[in-house]
Amino acid sequence: MTAEIIAVGSELLTPQRVDTNSLFLTRKLYERGIEVVRKTIIGDDRQRLALEIRRARESSEVVIMTGGLGPTLDDLSRDAASDALGRKLVFHQQIVDWIEERFRRRGRKMADVNRRQAYILEGAEIIPNARGTAPGQWFADDAGILMLLPGPPRELEPMFVDQCMPRFEKIESPYQYHTVSMRVSGVPESDLDQRIGPIYSAEPRVATTILAAPGDIQIHLRAKAARKEEARTIAEELAALVESELGQQIYTRENEPLEEVVGRRFHELGLTLAVAESCTGGLLAQRITAVPGASQYFAGGFVSYTEDAKINWLGVDQTTIEQHGAVSRETTEAMARAVRGKAKASVGAAITGVAGPGGGTERAPVGTVFIGIASESSVAVKERHFGGERELIRSLAAQTTLELLLRIVR
Amino acid sequence: MTAEIIAVGSELLTPQRVDTNSLFLTRKLYERGIEVVRKTIIGDDRQRLALEIRRARESSEVVIMTGGLGPTLDDLSRDAASDALGRKLVFHQQIVDWIEERFRRRGRKMADVNRRQAYILEGAEIIPNARGTAPGQWFADDAGILMLLPGPPRELEPMFVDQCMPRFEKIESPYQYHTVSMRVSGVPESDLDQRIGPIYSAEPRVATTILAAPGDIQIHLRAKAARKEEARTIAEELAALVESELGQQIYTRENEPLEEVVGRRFHELGLTLAVAESCTGGLLAQRITAVPGASQYFAGGFVSYTEDAKINWLGVDQTTIEQHGAVSRETTEAMARAVRGKAKASVGAAITGVAGPGGGTERAPVGTVFIGIASESSVAVKERHFGGERELIRSLAAQTTLELLLRIVR
Repeated sequence: MTAEIIAVGSELLTPQRVDTNSLFLTRKLYERGIEVVRKTIIGDDRQRLALEIRRARESSEVVIMTGGLGPTLDDLSRDAASDALGRKLVFHQQIVDWIEERFRRRGRKMADVNRRQAYILEGAEIIPNARGTAPGQWFADDAGILMLLPGPPRELEPMFVDQCMPRFEKIESPYQYHTVSMRVSGVPESDLDQRIGPIYSAEPRVATTILAAPGDIQIHLRAKAARKEEARTIAEELAALVESELGQQIYTRENEPLEEVVGRRFHELGLTLAVAESCTGGLLAQRITAVPGASQYFAGGFVSYTEDAKINWLGVDQTTIEQHGAVSRETTEAMARAVRGKAKASVGAAITGVAGPGGGTERAPVGTVFIGIASESSVAVKERHFGGERELIRSLAAQTTLELLLRIVR
Repeated sequence: MTAEIIAVGSELLTPQRVDTNSLFLTRKLYERGIEVVRKTIIGDDRQRLALEIRRARESSEVVIMTGGLGPTLDDLSRDAASDALGRKLVFHQQIVDWIEERFRRRGRKMADVNRRQAYILEGAEIIPNARGTAPGQWFADDAGILMLLPGPPRELEPMFVDQCMPRFEKIESPYQYHTVSMRVSGVPESDLDQRIGPIYSAEPRVATTILAAPGDIQIHLRAKAARKEEARTIAEELAALVESELGQQIYTRENEPLEEVVGRRFHELGLTLAVAESCTGGLLAQRITAVPGASQYFAGGFVSYTEDAKINWLGVDQTTIEQHGAVSRETTEAMARAVRGKAKASVGAAITGVAGPGGGTERAPVGTVFIGIASESSVAVKERHFGGERELIRSLAAQTTLELLLRIVR
């Protein structure tokens, strides 16, 4: 079974606006073994929408339209679906009663325009909306399923999970699915694909997806079989082959970020962590504390962005900075030691570097980053040279630090 | 003139993966007065892609395909465009020479598969790619323009700006455009629309776009007229009306984030800033240092996530915390004063709060945030109660702090 998602609304075609509903729906459909083969964003244009619905129903069994169910003249999903299916819209007084009641509870009166939301495709089921005025619609015929859902994620998400997913469960599928996910840090995407491409390509029963973010790659292996147990065996067998190739470079078998794995290991081992950041300016601390419960192992951090802060707050020796520079192996080592001591933590991590665009020198050009990890017995400092813009350099510096921290606690 | 964007690649149809190229292209096209009327994401399927190109060219003058130009068998944009246009692909030896040279410079040898990247649509212009092996293609005929561009943003963006935009400039348009942008902090989207909706709706010559992020709203007013000067006047007249309604809540007339405006003002006034963060865990410092040159006014930060850090690093009085709690007006005030003193900065900002999901108390439920701003003469503390998840609460806490900082330097 394949699916297409049509997001409706001219506002979704403006710069910087992301259609997040389709990400949510793709994930949910994927869990049910339904592949999304196309996503389309279209403005509020009745004819374009009707043509798109017709085209989508010709190529996929499931078509989900999001948005365009509001009360205004710009909300055209109902009319477009009616045009595309050649079916009338039927007025439902019960929906008006229900919207009126909703307004009444808020001490307001329903506007007349809201009556538009009471029109439902002939033959469609109404999907009640507990968080807004627009009901959804579920229409099924021999060509497949057409769903109309409201645009706001807080309305759409519970409607889809509570009311659409159970309807899917009733539709018999000849296949069962099992997915194994893993995440890898510190391997370039091209290298990874060269190493595991031959492995997963040899297993046609598994759909392999590789998602690459800076310094972090997700691998999803989804097996398909007649029985659930069989799908699990196929996926796990392939996962074992991938693992034997990548080994310790796989940092998790759950779909969780690196900071969560690092944090859990620190907590399990009863260790604490403190950080001193220069070029990343708080990014590392921010990632560590994004994990709920981080206070159980995170002792705190210094954003020692200036020389004064390195000297006065952390206690780095001024001559170390003068002799070797703020961005140097020696200063980074001193910062890692110092923050560990200041925080009385088991481990201290420090980052210095030149994130650019300015500030590069011959000795430390833009992209140079030093990362120091101090434990009770020793301090290790790594030097890295990252390419790209300021944001990417900062992000790779934080990611690499987490990777080095994981090595000492895994 | 209207445009459609087709993003190619099965990986873009997986959950969590956002097609960021289309946001970039929409913004650039918008500046040129070209409206994007549809965005489509399609997997690596030659037939689906060819059909989509044909359909898109029937409805819009400009069609941009991104991705699918790599060297592997999964990269099908060239073949699909050839099918859709009914035009051959022509092999260009010069492209192979150029790719080989690129590999040679890196001390590597070109793989045979890269020869696939040397095929160009008959009649198309080659768009050189300085940052990767895949050249772009620009094809124009009576039906309009078809562009093929590589998927990686760092390759696509300079190619589009340096090579495609100038080609657009040569195409005559009957209209000229002028856009005024402004950004607003701390006003809920529905309130904003209620206040300025009647103003912009009364001006049909201006297309108004409102983009809302947590705590931050962008307003774009794009006027269309026969002459550039006329478009500017129309846009500026409407902007003046919007400004008279929103006043100081508009923090910039450029499209720049709040941390950039705050940073520039601190720098202009010769002031310095230091921060102490508890629940935001470095997020505020990270935003401040995301701006290049932040070292000119940012004296540094403390991620005082624990009580020990508040007491030992900042020097907050232990009895203050014991009497009032770590999340309290009094502790926040003490932190703001302390960080200002420690950093010898003009201004100290402090944040404490409960970001959740755990850790809420009767006195300070999840979402409670105190923000303190200390200057030489005084300390002001604000109490806020944010709704939503951990990430949203942290993000609103940082945004609100920047907003309060702007108030004292604007």
